[in-house]
Amino acid sequence: MDQEKLQRILKKMEERDLSQMIITDPPAIFYLTGKWIIPGERMLALYINTKGVKHLFVNRMLPQEKDLGVEITYFDDTEDPVAILSGVIEKDKPIGIDKTWPSRFLLRLQELKAGSSFVNGSVIVDKVRQIKSKKEQELMIESSLVNDKVMEELVPYVVKGLSEKELNAVTRDLFKKHGCSGVSFDPITAYGHGAADPHHVTDDSKGKKGDCVILDIGGVLNDYISDMTRTVFIGEVSERHKEIYQIVRDANLKGIAMAKPGNRMCDVDLACRNYIEEKGYGQYFTHRTGHSAGIEDHEVGDVSSVNEEIIEVGQCFSVEPGIYIPEENIGVRVEDLVIITEDGCKILNHYTKDLLVVKEDGSLVVAE
Amino acid sequence: MDQEKLQRILKKMEERDLSQMIITDPPAIFYLTGKWIIPGERMLALYINTKGVKHLFVNRMLPQEKDLGVEITYFDDTEDPVAILSGVIEKDKPIGIDKTWPSRFLLRLQELKAGSSFVNGSVIVDKVRQIKSKKEQELMIESSLVNDKVMEELVPYVVKGLSEKELNAVTRDLFKKHGCSGVSFDPITAYGHGAADPHHVTDDSKGKKGDCVILDIGGVLNDYISDMTRTVFIGEVSERHKEIYQIVRDANLKGIAMAKPGNRMCDVDLACRNYIEEKGYGQYFTHRTGHSAGIEDHEVGDVSSVNEEIIEVGQCFSVEPGIYIPEENIGVRVEDLVIITEDGCKILNHYTKDLLVVKEDGSLVVAE
Repeated sequence: MDQEKLQRILKKMEERDLSQMIITDPPAIFYLTGKWIIPGERMLALYINTKGVKHLFVNRMLPQEKDLGVEITYFDDTEDPVAILSGVIEKDKPIGIDKTWPSRFLLRLQELKAGSSFVNGSVIVDKVRQIKSKKEQELMIESSLVNDKVMEELVPYVVKGLSEKELNAVTRDLFKKHGCSGVSFDPITAYGHGAADPHHVTDDSKGKKGDCVILDIGGVLNDYISDMTRTVFIGEVSERHKEIYQIVRDANLKGIAMAKPGNRMCDVDLACRNYIEEKGYGQYFTHRTGHSAGIEDHEVGDVSSVNEEIIEVGQCFSVEPGIYIPEENIGVRVEDLVIITEDGCKILNHYTKDLLVVKEDGSLVVAE
Repeated sequence: MDQEKLQRILKKMEERDLSQMIITDPPAIFYLTGKWIIPGERMLALYINTKGVKHLFVNRMLPQEKDLGVEITYFDDTEDPVAILSGVIEKDKPIGIDKTWPSRFLLRLQELKAGSSFVNGSVIVDKVRQIKSKKEQELMIESSLVNDKVMEELVPYVVKGLSEKELNAVTRDLFKKHGCSGVSFDPITAYGHGAADPHHVTDDSKGKKGDCVILDIGGVLNDYISDMTRTVFIGEVSERHKEIYQIVRDANLKGIAMAKPGNRMCDVDLACRNYIEEKGYGQYFTHRTGHSAGIEDHEVGDVSSVNEEIIEVGQCFSVEPGIYIPEENIGVRVEDLVIITEDGCKILNHYTKDLLVVKEDGSLVVAE
């Protein structure tokens, strides 16, 4: 059990007058205990309270060999795990519930009247997780360094005549080759038509000369994720593509410039959004600007127009504006992860954001 | 919207005096609409009531091009989707909730006082899903025929010196080769020591002469899964292994013999369990005998000692007894899927259950 993280959570619980909660999401339990426990359809719950109780409830099929610094109660498939869990809950007090806990468990806990009220307690853990410790920041930095390398090796493949699915498979292999346990999300490797649709599903289509190619990729290294997008062009780039590319890239830079302590998350979004609107493409930027990242690729804390939370030192999130014009098969997105520092932010990705044309032989030409 | 399935659900709702419910689990929504909608962290909900209302709530990022036969309300990331959903709920009546719905949505719905009470409604949908339609039975049969082929091609690989992970990758490739969209669960390809541990994680170890090899594999064909286990031996088989193998195989047959309408699910479990206990290995059969299967590999309806539900025509479940003796590196499991018929059951798997020794050249010898 990471005492520093636990203390930060307990402090926030006290601030909100919540004396007890259960944490059930495997990434949150990993965050606190350093141990991944994947319960599948079975119950998993870590009960904590401000008196210092830390009690894990886990199925007997998942015996814990390592000392996790918590009391553990095992149950088997013939028992009612929620009833067992309810034994430690103070029934006359509100109980915080993890946002992802399946309803079958929560409804049973409510049936057992295990708390005076049931509230979403995840906001507490999520706020704590948003602020990365020094160690976590190092892990995020290392993970993104690998992403840089993968991007460098991946880009020349866009002229090898591979289908999107094949390019996706190459991406996965590259992350494994560089020591990642896997990808942090299904890589987006989309040519032209597919790139122009932000909800495109990787298919068998291939790229052709003049196509833009969106490469939105990330891996998992030592349990921390990376996530970067670059858009490159096959063989040549039209003036139209150039214009769009430069707007998106500059929007990315404007967003990053706003990523500093004291600004609001929505300020980052608006910096990108206003610039793209100014240039006349507002209707083609159809998604939020970014998301928080850490153990999971999407953590709580959107970079969106409605998130007015103040940015704090240690936060890590993506800045990824895009322009998508389906009728012209144009899609461009440029994404970096940043970590907020005392006076701004550190950009975790180093792969160039110059406009790159990939020639037939895999060589790169900067075309600006 | 599949009217026949919907009517069966509405009938069961009436029997239980539940006039309205929300279905949110993607497989359940696929079951009813024929469409996979994967909302990620976003809300997805299908509201139905016994007056005939069918209303789907889905994020604008997932536009539905096909007519699903339901009214659709879209929302975007800046809106409160639970508040929008609550608009159609009759607030003075109980509302059924899907068992997998994340607590963040349920807690918000409760905060909005959207029902007079909140109950787990999944049991209704799950009971209906247990009884496979003729069409579903055909799809399950076809899926298992592919599993037979994959097993046939996979078995000779156990003598090729591959690690468990490599054998796992071969398994995945074979399912793809045979037209599956993927595997229905992470294949278990475990030699000796790993086979002897039912919770073993596939690793880099290799098999050696005399080892048992557990192959527990399944694919997804046309959205329906397969799931079969065979245990084979590398090069030779000891008398001890033979004894255990025959007990497990015979337990599988005794379980299948009890799989008929009117018996209880626990009767199937007990037929396997009692036989293995009789033979003196009760303590080494450490899991339930099986699980229901269909769109998902694990559906509601365990074949376990505590499930006293009566078996009905059209159910599909696995019968998979095993004996695991870690201190001797022995692990044997034999599994088939069955579909319940008027007078017994149809076994979906045809790959032989004879005791097979795989010789160095990949040839098979029956060793009984």
